Amino acid sequence: VLGETISALLDECKSDLASVVGVGLATPGPLSLREGRIIHAANLPGWRDVPIREALANPLGLPVVLENDGNAAAFGEHVAGAGLGCQHLVVLTLGTGVGAGVIVDGRILHGHFDNAAELGHMIVVVDGLPCPCGQRGCLERYSSADAIVRRSLGTAAVRERGRNVSPPLVGGAQAGAIPQTAAEVADGAEKGDTLCAQVWDDACKYLAVACVNIQHAFNPQRILLAGGLSLAGDMLLDPVQRHLHAQAWKLHTDLPEIALAKLGSDAGVIGAAALAFRSLPSPA
Amino acid sequence: VLGETISALLDECKSDLASVVGVGLATPGPLSLREGRIIHAANLPGWRDVPIREALANPLGLPVVLENDGNAAAFGEHVAGAGLGCQHLVVLTLGTGVGAGVIVDGRILHGHFDNAAELGHMIVVVDGLPCPCGQRGCLERYSSADAIVRRSLGTAAVRERGRNVSPPLVGGAQAGAIPQTAAEVADGAEKGDTLCAQVWDDACKYLAVACVNIQHAFNPQRILLAGGLSLAGDMLLDPVQRHLHAQAWKLHTDLPEIALAKLGSDAGVIGAAALAFRSLPSPA
Repeated sequence: VLGETISALLDECKSDLASVVGVGLATPGPLSLREGRIIHAANLPGWRDVPIREALANPLGLPVVLENDGNAAAFGEHVAGAGLGCQHLVVLTLGTGVGAGVIVDGRILHGHFDNAAELGHMIVVVDGLPCPCGQRGCLERYSSADAIVRRSLGTAAVRERGRNVSPPLVGGAQAGAIPQTAAEVADGAEKGDTLCAQVWDDACKYLAVACVNIQHAFNPQRILLAGGLSLAGDMLLDPVQRHLHAQAWKLHTDLPEIALAKLGSDAGVIGAAALAFRSLPSPA
Repeated sequence: VLGETISALLDECKSDLASVVGVGLATPGPLSLREGRIIHAANLPGWRDVPIREALANPLGLPVVLENDGNAAAFGEHVAGAGLGCQHLVVLTLGTGVGAGVIVDGRILHGHFDNAAELGHMIVVVDGLPCPCGQRGCLERYSSADAIVRRSLGTAAVRERGRNVSPPLVGGAQAGAIPQTAAEVADGAEKGDTLCAQVWDDACKYLAVACVNIQHAFNPQRILLAGGLSLAGDMLLDPVQRHLHAQAWKLHTDLPEIALAKLGSDAGVIGAAALAFRSLPSPA
């Protein structure tokens, strides 16, 4: 099926395979990059233990580079987006979950197990909300678009009330319509709905805490906010900045810039293409 | 003074300056490695804005390599200690504070501002105990030797009781002697003192949470526990392991090994020496 899609794409571009020098593939992980294999794609049912690199490279007769989608998006922003010129860059993709990619000295950080930069699963609340990954209190339980909707529906908020440091969430949603998307929560917050405002502010606060921890871990020049949630623009950026200045240390001027990503959903594709291009042997 | 110390050391080794090829210097940070300058050494009063590399290199006529002490210790364990063979390694030095060093692809991670791997200041409790650095809820407020003593004295524990997820700390210290060192807290915990056991277990639990966050950030093969607290051996390692298995995700087999460091307080010196040696031009 991927092969057919590639053919259709080439037709659309009025191009053919002969003019393609390589293929970059960005997929959800975890992956084994050494073996070019998808170990288990959490959000793609049935994709388990798939040797995708060979499956694609053999019929095409082209080199194929496999990369985790969060890493590819970070690399895209690094080579052609809001991270251009940053040798140390972190990109947080705020969507259904929280994906991430880390650039260290201009290169993607993979780690020993090829699974670095899973920053959506950093624990921001010890013994906090349960995550399908098996942990509790993961960043993506508080600061993803999904989490914002779920928390604004109240159940999570009420359940958590007794053991969280936040002030108790007060009503407000009952008064208006129940928000179905993160954009509606942002909208509600802007219009003064107390519950929406609290959930939105919590999401921004935990994002800021994650940024502090990213600062101390990687010391990047810049942290980019990407994904659906970043469409909120200053409505996201301003409170994250405010919480960051309140939470971060005062010792040293190593605070990363926080900015919005530029490439939208093209970041992963651009990053994967750039990786494929860079992996080619340089012309003799 | 440093010059005199170097002379005395050379005398002691029955050596002289002619046989020395370079000097490695490990100091507390923050540093500017590019400029070879101590910006502000928090625990060395008066050391502020000191161009230490030139101050030492000029009179000695030798190349001097400056490195943050936590990074130098991590590099020492990487080249000659419990991290030998690990290209991706994190070392946590648990003493007065919590120092750290991160090895990525066999090299020290510095970040854009030369201040990466300040893992003792990762926030583990949002709005938690205040830290002299200006943040709240830093790892080193819970899991350093100092923090363990302070918390076991009860004030911090009582102050925090109302807003922490841990079960309330119950008495015990009143019954026995008040512990003055982390070793005494460990001892008390072993002998069944409830307060000591709770403080010790909390320290191990927050360390485990930090290890989960380190796993997701860097994906290292191994995390080493070093510093005074690591002298507790299995008394530290066992509960950290237990909490790590309880806190970490179940998705993927990328759990880092947790082990004790090997080189003790020599790690920084060995690491600095190795860095000085590696910085020399290779013989033609």
